[in-house]
Amino acid sequence: MSNKQLTKREENFSQWYLDVITAADLAEHGDVKGTMIIKPYGYAIWERLQRILDDKIKETGHQNAYFPMFIPKSFFSKEAAHVSGFAKECAVVTHYRLKTDEKGELVVDPEAKLQEELIVRPTSETIIHSAFSRWIKSWRDLPILINQWANIVRWEMRTRLFLRTSEFLWQEGHTAHATEAEAEAEARKMLEVYKWLAQDIMAMPVIDGQKSEAEKFAGALRTYAIEAMMQDGKSLQAGTSHNLGQGFAKAFEVKFVDENNTQQYAWMTSWGVSTRLIGGLIMTHSDNKGLVLPPQLAPIQVVIIPIIKDDNSAKKVLEAVTKLKEDLQTAAVRVHVDSRDFETMGNKMYEWEKKGVPLRIEIGPRDVENKQVMLACRDQDKKSPLPLSGAVTAITDLLLDMQKSLFIKAQKRLTENSYNIDNYSEFTKKVENGGFFYAHWCGNAKCEEEIKQETKATIRCMPFAQKEEKGVCMKCNKDSKKRVIFARAY
Amino acid sequence: MSNKQLTKREENFSQWYLDVITAADLAEHGDVKGTMIIKPYGYAIWERLQRILDDKIKETGHQNAYFPMFIPKSFFSKEAAHVSGFAKECAVVTHYRLKTDEKGELVVDPEAKLQEELIVRPTSETIIHSAFSRWIKSWRDLPILINQWANIVRWEMRTRLFLRTSEFLWQEGHTAHATEAEAEAEARKMLEVYKWLAQDIMAMPVIDGQKSEAEKFAGALRTYAIEAMMQDGKSLQAGTSHNLGQGFAKAFEVKFVDENNTQQYAWMTSWGVSTRLIGGLIMTHSDNKGLVLPPQLAPIQVVIIPIIKDDNSAKKVLEAVTKLKEDLQTAAVRVHVDSRDFETMGNKMYEWEKKGVPLRIEIGPRDVENKQVMLACRDQDKKSPLPLSGAVTAITDLLLDMQKSLFIKAQKRLTENSYNIDNYSEFTKKVENGGFFYAHWCGNAKCEEEIKQETKATIRCMPFAQKEEKGVCMKCNKDSKKRVIFARAY
Repeated sequence: MSNKQLTKREENFSQWYLDVITAADLAEHGDVKGTMIIKPYGYAIWERLQRILDDKIKETGHQNAYFPMFIPKSFFSKEAAHVSGFAKECAVVTHYRLKTDEKGELVVDPEAKLQEELIVRPTSETIIHSAFSRWIKSWRDLPILINQWANIVRWEMRTRLFLRTSEFLWQEGHTAHATEAEAEAEARKMLEVYKWLAQDIMAMPVIDGQKSEAEKFAGALRTYAIEAMMQDGKSLQAGTSHNLGQGFAKAFEVKFVDENNTQQYAWMTSWGVSTRLIGGLIMTHSDNKGLVLPPQLAPIQVVIIPIIKDDNSAKKVLEAVTKLKEDLQTAAVRVHVDSRDFETMGNKMYEWEKKGVPLRIEIGPRDVENKQVMLACRDQDKKSPLPLSGAVTAITDLLLDMQKSLFIKAQKRLTENSYNIDNYSEFTKKVENGGFFYAHWCGNAKCEEEIKQETKATIRCMPFAQKEEKGVCMKCNKDSKKRVIFARAY
Repeated sequence: MSNKQLTKREENFSQWYLDVITAADLAEHGDVKGTMIIKPYGYAIWERLQRILDDKIKETGHQNAYFPMFIPKSFFSKEAAHVSGFAKECAVVTHYRLKTDEKGELVVDPEAKLQEELIVRPTSETIIHSAFSRWIKSWRDLPILINQWANIVRWEMRTRLFLRTSEFLWQEGHTAHATEAEAEAEARKMLEVYKWLAQDIMAMPVIDGQKSEAEKFAGALRTYAIEAMMQDGKSLQAGTSHNLGQGFAKAFEVKFVDENNTQQYAWMTSWGVSTRLIGGLIMTHSDNKGLVLPPQLAPIQVVIIPIIKDDNSAKKVLEAVTKLKEDLQTAAVRVHVDSRDFETMGNKMYEWEKKGVPLRIEIGPRDVENKQVMLACRDQDKKSPLPLSGAVTAITDLLLDMQKSLFIKAQKRLTENSYNIDNYSEFTKKVENGGFFYAHWCGNAKCEEEIKQETKATIRCMPFAQKEEKGVCMKCNKDSKKRVIFARAY
């Protein structure tokens, strides 16, 4: 990549996305098809997200734990809908030893075949509910509120960095409750947490709502989701939260004795977000110069580049740089000084731009004399002087402003590309260009499937905020009470 | 478990260890043989360790990243010593899909067989060095200082919670350098970090030194380790750091152009500690009442139990409890109030004792009147009053003291159970009872292997601190310059 121009977003969105990742050095493909290496800068963004969400998960009463990643094949057969949802994309462990054969080649030892094959977790409901069945005896043991951070494997044929890889990282919450109402409240509460994470931390506006039966999680009673609009108008499912009802509890015998001494099945939820969020982050804010990061998530919020002209002035410049750096650190700003002497000024500027660092500050001898620095905001096209006096306050204000303005910009795009639509033939044309289409739908899975086949658009969600109104399904003309969102999606 | 007495440490150490884990609710076996579920309280200890070590890893200049857990089988063949070290304990993925057969049973789909089998990482040198070969071109790209937190699989036939499980959690550092000296310095520096973690954070004294050729990491030039003595006198390898030399660099073509424009192979290191440390923590400090946690690692440092006698005095007690809790939180003490009303006072005390909470505070109506609390230290057998005035300072001091005294106690045991020994027949008898045996050894792998076969003792390390002295190998009487440590080990 180095100094190559990025593909233009408006010319080839999909190639632009990959170029942004390469230019910012976020990730690359691993040696095994479909796998991903998350490089240090990409991982630092994930760590920011993870720390912020983890704190919130604990604040809301959950505890972290860790469950094995190998799941006995038989566990999958226990919940019928679950197995049909995941069987087609499972990595299967069949042996536990290699050996060197007579030709001196490393082969799988046929004598080390497992009696029962193991599945690498595509999600952990089965293994966790099996543990819950041992842990839960009485109403006093409830609720159980667990979360785990883990790697997940879903064998994907068509992969895309961050958005769809065979292995990815995520958190998965798993809870058990005494009543249906508590489970429902938990599922909705955690969707609220995800909405907060997307909007307040990632500056990525989302629509929250319920999934249709066809789109819900394999084994769930109801699935809730937040959906974000990418810059090409396609939707990204950014987080899901499931009310699992009692289906898994019945399959895994998760029972408790209630306060009236009666045996009851527990009510479960599960909810998760993954490294896919980083794909959403990229496609929400980045531009033709590369990555744009909201200040809350930027591993480096401010980069300072000293401009050294000669030995005479170097000392004064470096003093000013160090002072500003320390003052910013005291104000809890994440700051980095780029003092590499083997890179040109141009290359440095270009590199930090591609990496989406919110603020870039240059300090040269002239600036020190004028008691100022030169400041460039990543989301604007100009560079302007900033007085050194009061610089820290100005910078922290600018970071807050940028966080807000990135959200507002994305929100504006979401609004401008959302349409009420009633005519199906008009829909089939307009959907080609992306956007969220609020349309009436009869509630029938057949219409939903036909629309998907004909337009590649799916029901993203039935938005919570949507008001009831009279209408007819845009596909079959049967009665409908509410509009749902149709869109093409990642 | 509930109120069952623990097996006595002196009667059956191995059962006592498992009883401590169950009583403190740290972990349990998973559904697949050899796997482990780390329960919330056990995981909270791991999270403390992880956060503290992660901060130090970053302070020392390393960056986190994430590499795929699936390694192509062919990667293992590239480094001969490495493959022979790990081939016998690999989980192998051979298929990527399940299907329902004609009988309606869930089976592995034979048509979804992988062309090349995948190994679930037993360690990540191969996959990471393959990435390094793409990332490193010039001396300017060096050093590369990477760390990852990950799950690891080594198929174990005889497993033991925390100490030896098929899947475990760890961090693995992987670095590449331009010179041998830099790699050596890095390997030694990270061993120092591990020593600090063991001694200053876990209060677990260790001996640092070099491993013999027979005990070094498969593929390393030199392996350094820290070894701790458990309460039964056996050794626990608590962390290792490897100078890998250029072996992997040659196998994976990790080359760079140096400042003289010459192609060179890079010099590598790797280093890791795992959830095994929690096993070491348990076997270092715990007693017949259950877990004992050093305050630095305790998820809960202080538990406060309000004693409610009647409605009249309840309000005053709860006010005092809340005030103390808030004051302790302000002083960054991790405090928990146990206000469960369905548990007896006795059960509560017993539970927090088993969980190793350093300080237990009880507050009843009489205490409020007397402006005091009752305080019990987990490592002492008495309960005494503590005036409420100045309580926070007294408590933070007590936590510091307990951290120190746990270390001193363990250090004393280590010293008392370390012996200089010269007579082999005496050694074979004494080693039965545990302890570290400083003995002369000729340096020959044959003697080392014979000693292992005859006594189950191995060379734990050649201690850095050991002075040169004239002597003869206790096994073969050939010349030796330094004593090494023999011991039985986990």
